[in-house]
Amino acid sequence: MKTYKELYTAVETQISSLSFTGNPQNLYDPIGYMLSLGGKRLRPVLCLMANDMFGGEAQHAMPAALAVEVFHNFTLVHDDIMDNAPIRRGKPTVHEKWNQTIAILSGDLMMIKAIDLLVSTQKTDVGKLIQIFNKAAAEVCEGQQLDMNFENLNEVQVQQYLDMITLKTAVLLGASLKLGATIAGATDDDAEKLYLFGKHIGVAFQIQDDLLDAFGEGDKVGKKIGGDIAANKKTLLWIEALRLADASDKDALNSCIGMTNEKEKINKVIDLYKKLGVLEVCEQLKKKQLQLAFAYLDAISVGSEKKQVLKNSAIELMERMS
Amino acid sequence: MKTYKELYTAVETQISSLSFTGNPQNLYDPIGYMLSLGGKRLRPVLCLMANDMFGGEAQHAMPAALAVEVFHNFTLVHDDIMDNAPIRRGKPTVHEKWNQTIAILSGDLMMIKAIDLLVSTQKTDVGKLIQIFNKAAAEVCEGQQLDMNFENLNEVQVQQYLDMITLKTAVLLGASLKLGATIAGATDDDAEKLYLFGKHIGVAFQIQDDLLDAFGEGDKVGKKIGGDIAANKKTLLWIEALRLADASDKDALNSCIGMTNEKEKINKVIDLYKKLGVLEVCEQLKKKQLQLAFAYLDAISVGSEKKQVLKNSAIELMERMS
Repeated sequence: MKTYKELYTAVETQISSLSFTGNPQNLYDPIGYMLSLGGKRLRPVLCLMANDMFGGEAQHAMPAALAVEVFHNFTLVHDDIMDNAPIRRGKPTVHEKWNQTIAILSGDLMMIKAIDLLVSTQKTDVGKLIQIFNKAAAEVCEGQQLDMNFENLNEVQVQQYLDMITLKTAVLLGASLKLGATIAGATDDDAEKLYLFGKHIGVAFQIQDDLLDAFGEGDKVGKKIGGDIAANKKTLLWIEALRLADASDKDALNSCIGMTNEKEKINKVIDLYKKLGVLEVCEQLKKKQLQLAFAYLDAISVGSEKKQVLKNSAIELMERMS
Repeated sequence: MKTYKELYTAVETQISSLSFTGNPQNLYDPIGYMLSLGGKRLRPVLCLMANDMFGGEAQHAMPAALAVEVFHNFTLVHDDIMDNAPIRRGKPTVHEKWNQTIAILSGDLMMIKAIDLLVSTQKTDVGKLIQIFNKAAAEVCEGQQLDMNFENLNEVQVQQYLDMITLKTAVLLGASLKLGATIAGATDDDAEKLYLFGKHIGVAFQIQDDLLDAFGEGDKVGKKIGGDIAANKKTLLWIEALRLADASDKDALNSCIGMTNEKEKINKVIDLYKKLGVLEVCEQLKKKQLQLAFAYLDAISVGSEKKQVLKNSAIELMERMS
């Protein structure tokens, strides 16, 4: 079984050899730019890992692995426009570095190029791959729109939030795994179980990400503590806090929204989170997702030694985040 | 052979039975809205016409026909954002009626749904259909970006302009025909000739569209004469005028750009077009494209009676525009 690091290196090598050129060049440049910004390459690595688990060859799953990475980057380009985000991985976003028109169009082009990569997969029913891919692709759009809609809601329910992060981030992890498994010739049943593993792991990752904003160690997390609080983001912590609060704590939470002293605001909200036991409740939700994920992984009909890399990688990723 | 009207009716029936629903509904509503705004349905009708020419059944080519129509409407939604256009076919554009976020995301979703429709085609190599479709899709993005880039250029060459309209509008007409022919089992050679017919007809249509802005009869054209001139658009007329003008006429043309009295501006530019013989030069270019188109159609290996509907439709469309 290949390790995360081996597969990551294989993905990086392929990405750096991809060349997106055409006329006009200013439409193609943002594709290479986005792909050069790096990252964990989680989705393509998961695709290759699933393929490896079912005895597939990395080269056969590579086009699909690259397709999900290009698709993921397309969503980042369009999301950054919607979020008015100036910075992505320490560098200017596409709409900042070029302009909004180029960001919309080169995003559209990346979506088309992702499908091109996917259909270049050999020896597999391409229609089946596109069905898996497109289902997740549509759901990612739904998740992003739900997230946008939440900004105009006074209160979001826990289940609504879980549904949103499932669509916005988790289903693409599941689909990446399912594509890799399908290309390796896994049964539909095994491929679906792996999809569900990826989906629940993805939700757990996202919950962890929310937790770290308030309860992580700033240096390790690599971003400043309380960023979500400062931006009044409706994270799982915030949603659970409102649910657990009595009238007076609810007032206290809501009064934080308009506070101008950022440091005071962050400290006050974290104190309220601690008082309400929000961390423990969220940890429970995360644990439940992890249990579901690993139960699906266990139920897959390959030897447990073949599942070890995927299992360890998931645990390591979760720990590296904390 | 089925007529344009018969095929148009079949397309309309299918479009009105398409249902795009999902959560959140505000992401799906713009799809139905855009498709309900009507239009000539030129692309899907061409797809079915090509299919009919090669003895295919309309029901087999319908998913591809709908795919190109949904794709076309996706490009309109995103183009309208870039052009800051408030109105499309007499109704508010998607970003006006909803907002920019919804316009970007529902556009993205339409692109995904177009691919979904295409891969639902039965009894055909889906990979081949996607290659035809995606090549045109990427080129449409290139054409739109070239058009945007032209806004910042002082002078555009005639060939640059022809290349731009080829990509922005003509290739999708060609691809619509090629998809229909391929689904009916036409040879690659015949399908390619039909593609080239569509491409050159598309360029001729666009030239005609430019001509009518200055030389059409307002009532017939259905839009006000001189709209392109008022908006300082770099149409073929404008590009040819600058090319044909001597230094003094060039100064006269350029001085019109800043004129505030719209009626005077339009009259002055049209007078200069007449003086420079721009109409005749553009008519020649159009004629050349039509000749190329019909030569490709003639060379296709089916009986001439089977080409008649397509030929007549192209001529009628051209005349209906004038």
